[in-house]
Amino acid sequence: MVDILHRVGVVGSKDDVYAAITSPDRLAAWWTEDTTGDGDEGGVLKFQFLPGGFDMKVLETRPAERVLWEVVDGPAEWIGTHVRWDLHTEGDYTIVMFSHEGWREPVAFMNHCSTKWATYLMSMKQLVETGTGAPAPNDVQISNWH
Amino acid sequence: MVDILHRVGVVGSKDDVYAAITSPDRLAAWWTEDTTGDGDEGGVLKFQFLPGGFDMKVLETRPAERVLWEVVDGPAEWIGTHVRWDLHTEGDYTIVMFSHEGWREPVAFMNHCSTKWATYLMSMKQLVETGTGAPAPNDVQISNWH
Repeated sequence: MVDILHRVGVVGSKDDVYAAITSPDRLAAWWTEDTTGDGDEGGVLKFQFLPGGFDMKVLETRPAERVLWEVVDGPAEWIGTHVRWDLHTEGDYTIVMFSHEGWREPVAFMNHCSTKWATYLMSMKQLVETGTGAPAPNDVQISNWH
Repeated sequence: MVDILHRVGVVGSKDDVYAAITSPDRLAAWWTEDTTGDGDEGGVLKFQFLPGGFDMKVLETRPAERVLWEVVDGPAEWIGTHVRWDLHTEGDYTIVMFSHEGWREPVAFMNHCSTKWATYLMSMKQLVETGTGAPAPNDVQISNWH
């Protein structure tokens, strides 16, 4: 089992970062505009992109501290994996410790998703800090896989 | 042992991407301006940043195909790890399969380096595609750790 790991620091409160990863409206402002569903514990969030989408079951929400999703629909490589968000404060920053855990094999698509997650995390950071993110379909293109 | 994995696609030739990861002058244009040494097989490249630096022994160079570095000086967590670059063509793109392999533990610094590598790889992509990268000290700030 292999994991994607990232860390970004957002100049903003933990509450604002927590809202950015639990509210469908806020998620739509940094990840993909076509975001629906329920970001509270027990809910399912649906993230749709042009080529397909991901459905996330919300396993755990601890306000301003932690969010844990399980991928219940999407690409085969994603199903059953977990997306974990842990927040803490360091000075002016809310630190986001991010992991997308439980990939069965380090396939090329995992490399792609790792880089892509980094650009989306920067989009989330920009959203909280400036009010404007870069969600799909206007996200940063990193390669021929978009 | 845990690895950082990324994949970016550069609209440009494999020769141009290969130059970007072997020529000290080109490396200085996307990673850190303070880059010295020898990027050929058997050489040592020295990458200096404000808080410190990394010395890489060049273990393997296969022109326009592969570069493999071993970290011989730098932060304790980096020493002995390998940085691997594999290039191939897909249509108009040179695909860069990148890994920073052999971290002993998934420490928070690894999360940071994973996100930071993504932003540097985007800097390398921009350098090859547009002629201008964003090397340190004018790199993208991702957090309080810079």
